[in-house]
Amino acid sequence: MKVYVVGLGPGEEEQITGRAAAALEHSDVIAGYQTYIDLIRERYPEKEFLSTGMRKEPERCRTAIEEALKGKTVSMVCSGDAGVYGMAGLMFEVSQEYPPVEIEIVPGVTAACSGAAVLGAPLIHDFAVISLSDLLTPWELIEKRLDMAAQADFVICLYNPSSRKRADYLSRACDILLRTKSPETVCGMVRNIGRGGEHGEIMTLAELRDAQADMFTTVFVGNSCTKKIGDHMVTPRGYQGV
Amino acid sequence: MKVYVVGLGPGEEEQITGRAAAALEHSDVIAGYQTYIDLIRERYPEKEFLSTGMRKEPERCRTAIEEALKGKTVSMVCSGDAGVYGMAGLMFEVSQEYPPVEIEIVPGVTAACSGAAVLGAPLIHDFAVISLSDLLTPWELIEKRLDMAAQADFVICLYNPSSRKRADYLSRACDILLRTKSPETVCGMVRNIGRGGEHGEIMTLAELRDAQADMFTTVFVGNSCTKKIGDHMVTPRGYQGV
Repeated sequence: MKVYVVGLGPGEEEQITGRAAAALEHSDVIAGYQTYIDLIRERYPEKEFLSTGMRKEPERCRTAIEEALKGKTVSMVCSGDAGVYGMAGLMFEVSQEYPPVEIEIVPGVTAACSGAAVLGAPLIHDFAVISLSDLLTPWELIEKRLDMAAQADFVICLYNPSSRKRADYLSRACDILLRTKSPETVCGMVRNIGRGGEHGEIMTLAELRDAQADMFTTVFVGNSCTKKIGDHMVTPRGYQGV
Repeated sequence: MKVYVVGLGPGEEEQITGRAAAALEHSDVIAGYQTYIDLIRERYPEKEFLSTGMRKEPERCRTAIEEALKGKTVSMVCSGDAGVYGMAGLMFEVSQEYPPVEIEIVPGVTAACSGAAVLGAPLIHDFAVISLSDLLTPWELIEKRLDMAAQADFVICLYNPSSRKRADYLSRACDILLRTKSPETVCGMVRNIGRGGEHGEIMTLAELRDAQADMFTTVFVGNSCTKKIGDHMVTPRGYQGV
């Protein structure tokens, strides 16, 4: 009787950890957002699947816990890492409504790391991860985080850079970064990490400002030392000589 | 003829991805810092191992590339993710000294994610990753990053919080954070993630200031909404109602 919250990594079967695969294998029920269930359904044909659409996350957690309380082992799956804009926290929050259930978080490879690997080595040094989704967070705070991260010369990784309703958020974010950062700052975008159509692209911050992103894109903005080496985006380990 | 730079995750065999295991399997030579080689040596008894001590990273990269130029497939291994304070960037930088060699980065589970999973769900929302090692980075910049990250209410994850020569850096970092953050801020420390003696502990920022960390510890400082749920450190998804 247990709930695992499992990070699937970017999508391909080979990008999940042995521990994540074992958790899924040991589960009676696998729950999650429709898109992630579809990624793994064929690999576990004997399991019971519970899939839901967007914006039903608290209900999805309740269902998972209720199944566990019936004596089943349940895995709630997330893309990437369950603890980075994932379901791990919500599962603990919802669990407070129920008798005690054991919850185990199984980490995975988050998009900041899998996307970085496609581009080369853009992180390497101190970095900040910011979501441009203002569904649950005021845009003013997102602006403040972008501004401060730029002033502190962090490498910046943007999740949820764009959606149909938020088509101009990436350019708005870049305008904030451009208050401090050079327009020549080396940046990168990766689409569909670990899935068909995976595509990485390197560009300047000025070009990123006018670039098209979507829900499946992860954006990287370099620090003042980030450079392009061949086709790769590389941030040095420190500030040699400074 | 290829160099893989491979993230091993926190240490246990089950925490590496299928793709990382495949890269190691396909390699003729596995190179890396002594401690990481020792983690995996027994699993790959047929491979040629090249291990080196600390502070020899550029030489280690040169050796890997030189072996690849002889026609071998080489894996350079790192703890966690190769692109987060790892060898990925240095490999690209050093490769510029040689004829072209294919370099592929294989992502892994970095300590921010594996440590978070031990504590519960401390990340979840926007977070900043900062190394307290001032070997290659001026302490003044580290202070600025700590200060700005606190002002922007990021969750903060500290790598390399302490070493013999830097025994008071964690308390100095906490003093900077305490300029902005409440001393009651929920924080956590995880030692020896994924290895024998793995241990997570939750405390306030005031307690963290006086806590003992070491080279094998990852530190998490919550944002203004982070809370303790049972024995877990949990950051909510957003700022509901704000």
